[in-house]
Amino acid sequence: MFAKEVYINRRKALVEKMKGENGIILFLGNVESPAQYRDNCYKWRQDSNWLYFFGIDAPRFAATIDLESGVETIYADDFDLDDIIWTGPMPSVREQAESVGVGRSAGYGDIAAAIKGRKVHFLPASREYNAIKLAGLLGFDWQEAFSAGKKGCARASEPLVRAVISLRLVKEDIEIAEIDHACELGYEMHTVARKGIRTGRIEQTIVGEMESVSLGRGWGVSFPTILTQHGEIFHCHSHECLIEPGKLMVIDAGVENNDHYASDFTRTYPTAGRFTQMQRDIYQTVYECNELAFAMVRPGVAYRDCHLAAARHMLDNLGQLGLVKGDLDEMVADGVAGLFMPHGLGHNMGLDVHDMEDLGEDLVGYDADQSRSPQLGLGSLRMARRLQPGNVITDEPGIYFIPALIEQWKKDGTDKGRINYNKLETYYSFGGIRLEDDVLVTAGGARRLGSRRLPISPDEVEAAMETD
Amino acid sequence: MFAKEVYINRRKALVEKMKGENGIILFLGNVESPAQYRDNCYKWRQDSNWLYFFGIDAPRFAATIDLESGVETIYADDFDLDDIIWTGPMPSVREQAESVGVGRSAGYGDIAAAIKGRKVHFLPASREYNAIKLAGLLGFDWQEAFSAGKKGCARASEPLVRAVISLRLVKEDIEIAEIDHACELGYEMHTVARKGIRTGRIEQTIVGEMESVSLGRGWGVSFPTILTQHGEIFHCHSHECLIEPGKLMVIDAGVENNDHYASDFTRTYPTAGRFTQMQRDIYQTVYECNELAFAMVRPGVAYRDCHLAAARHMLDNLGQLGLVKGDLDEMVADGVAGLFMPHGLGHNMGLDVHDMEDLGEDLVGYDADQSRSPQLGLGSLRMARRLQPGNVITDEPGIYFIPALIEQWKKDGTDKGRINYNKLETYYSFGGIRLEDDVLVTAGGARRLGSRRLPISPDEVEAAMETD
Repeated sequence: MFAKEVYINRRKALVEKMKGENGIILFLGNVESPAQYRDNCYKWRQDSNWLYFFGIDAPRFAATIDLESGVETIYADDFDLDDIIWTGPMPSVREQAESVGVGRSAGYGDIAAAIKGRKVHFLPASREYNAIKLAGLLGFDWQEAFSAGKKGCARASEPLVRAVISLRLVKEDIEIAEIDHACELGYEMHTVARKGIRTGRIEQTIVGEMESVSLGRGWGVSFPTILTQHGEIFHCHSHECLIEPGKLMVIDAGVENNDHYASDFTRTYPTAGRFTQMQRDIYQTVYECNELAFAMVRPGVAYRDCHLAAARHMLDNLGQLGLVKGDLDEMVADGVAGLFMPHGLGHNMGLDVHDMEDLGEDLVGYDADQSRSPQLGLGSLRMARRLQPGNVITDEPGIYFIPALIEQWKKDGTDKGRINYNKLETYYSFGGIRLEDDVLVTAGGARRLGSRRLPISPDEVEAAMETD
Repeated sequence: MFAKEVYINRRKALVEKMKGENGIILFLGNVESPAQYRDNCYKWRQDSNWLYFFGIDAPRFAATIDLESGVETIYADDFDLDDIIWTGPMPSVREQAESVGVGRSAGYGDIAAAIKGRKVHFLPASREYNAIKLAGLLGFDWQEAFSAGKKGCARASEPLVRAVISLRLVKEDIEIAEIDHACELGYEMHTVARKGIRTGRIEQTIVGEMESVSLGRGWGVSFPTILTQHGEIFHCHSHECLIEPGKLMVIDAGVENNDHYASDFTRTYPTAGRFTQMQRDIYQTVYECNELAFAMVRPGVAYRDCHLAAARHMLDNLGQLGLVKGDLDEMVADGVAGLFMPHGLGHNMGLDVHDMEDLGEDLVGYDADQSRSPQLGLGSLRMARRLQPGNVITDEPGIYFIPALIEQWKKDGTDKGRINYNKLETYYSFGGIRLEDDVLVTAGGARRLGSRRLPISPDEVEAAMETD
């Protein structure tokens, strides 16, 4: 937790941005989330918006900010003796409220009376429990309060959502220090992972070793670790395979530090320690796309343009390898790169690894004059905005050879004759490559987060694996 | 997953036990559970009852067993090309159903039509999503389908609950092999933990090291690890403290293996590597209680009586230390031991670490002629039943010195003059001790699970820590 002034100032800035709105803002912290049975819960994780404005890292808290009177109230229940046997002595709700600069506290059951008859502003709920709670308090179906992904959710307050996004998009110096710290831990975790790659080991063993860093020094992983010799499968969370020679191992993983800020790095390693020529050619292209995008990052540049520049460079190189042919600008415009990279160049990162995703991807990642493309790849871009100092984004180009998708394009003629399918067939067992860094937009340009960059050029990777 | 015959036989046995009931049984598997935001989920964990009867370890499955026609159906949706980019090629729902011996499959959206107008038997929901789903399908409030702890839940089918309990209480040989395996992993994880205890380290570092076993070789921990120098706080999940000399470190932790069976061991270590005399006296008592209870375990013995025998022995020893005085039988009857051990001797263990807890603790752990005591300690006993071969239980006596609780008893005179409060005050910074093994009830008596027992006698512990 930060000093109370941090939370006071954030709430003050929020109220300022909500000027002209009336009613009351309601924030719900998380409750515990059952894993096996209701009293055997997953590791406690507070709601990110709650952490941002109220900081208290404990279950079953709520708060209101009255936009008319300015009164702030925190709602939670004090512990009794029975609880104390289980939890030890705990500070009172009043003390906890004061620790984040909120002067008024009440019981969790008092929320209903406090908002009765008022216009209530709330954010989309990320978990079912909070959606049910909101629906019960406000009298509609729970799904209307539950985040619906790209578009946010039906009943949430758009002025509140926009105000929160405009604050959280620009990281404060103390947040940048936290993200730098999470990236230090991420560097260490990835280093443990790289050193663990040896043919004959089971992938899961490495995942376990990585957790000695993420859980030993941080809250845990910032998302379920991707560690796979099938990089062409984006969310492959199975880790049962033996490491085989000649494969490419994609490791996409991040640490959430104890203050709940994320890191998110991806590296791709030749399991044998050295790339084949075929692997090196594709790897070099992804590496160049990563470098190219980073070099473009500076205030005022739309991140959408970085995505498109990387796509153009990728197609240029793939053309030299004989995999595509045609006019580069036309291929970019037609989205041909989406066959090879069916995801976006990057996303915002902060308290969430996809920062604020539940507030609605389009509201978070697109300026008012931008709209989301329907194309494969570009259509998945989570951050298209013109960059501002303080934005924290990922830079994560990738190239994948996905047989089912290639066959579909071939059948549908989606590529309009640009793809050399005969040549592409020789890549069907290639897998995929992704290379991801975390980037801060600065006044003068950009800085990669964390004090050290994981080895990334093909030569650096081979040298590191030889030393490991 | 086991061979399909395992699931076929379990369902056959279930239907047999439901003879005389009409209607249809509805089982819901789990869906993913959001951690930070709805698309950043906690590690996938299937529902345990689903795993037991249907085995398929993937989200968003449901099934019905028609008690009148005998027809079994699995409900889930096949993947399309968009999904395949994210998940890779997947077997069809039909193939998955066949892999567990179910001949009929339908879409997830077809559940409503299948149960319309029928009497529906279901189990209490462990997660909010399934409670909402059941409530929506059957037309009542979600909380009526959500597990309410000791008593199960209002709307669930008691015949179904009782049938499931009677099956899952008695472990099959293949299940015992799984639990033995989970206990091997538990042994390794605890060994890593013990070796990690050195003054000046941060507790969290050891928790991270332990996960290299639990996540590297199993699904993960079977419950959030307790690792604390404040053993008197039962569910202390904060791990930020430095390890100090002269303390007692309670480590209560288990591994869930990749087939989702649990282990659950507790050991208590002197942080300095050697016990003080005061620590050794209390430790020796807890150790003797653990041994005493184990020695009593055999078919036909009520586990409640093992709890009471341990309580009696504990009071006897505490009397010799001058902490309590009075007639032993009367003190046991009055629950004086509850001040020192305000929890039960043990619980069932299997696919859940507290096996089947959401089905209702009283139904799971008490025979029809037994009722739960209102006393502190005995009232928390989760397993009181007369033991049967195939039961898997924990044996976990403990002694704790909880200042707030002691002060409460002193104020209320709860002990009726049996406690020597002056002496007890010298224990206020002692902390607590718990020693837990996992035990299989066999035809001839009992066997501790796992091939090796963690060092437990005071001499064994000191010898092991000297070697570490």
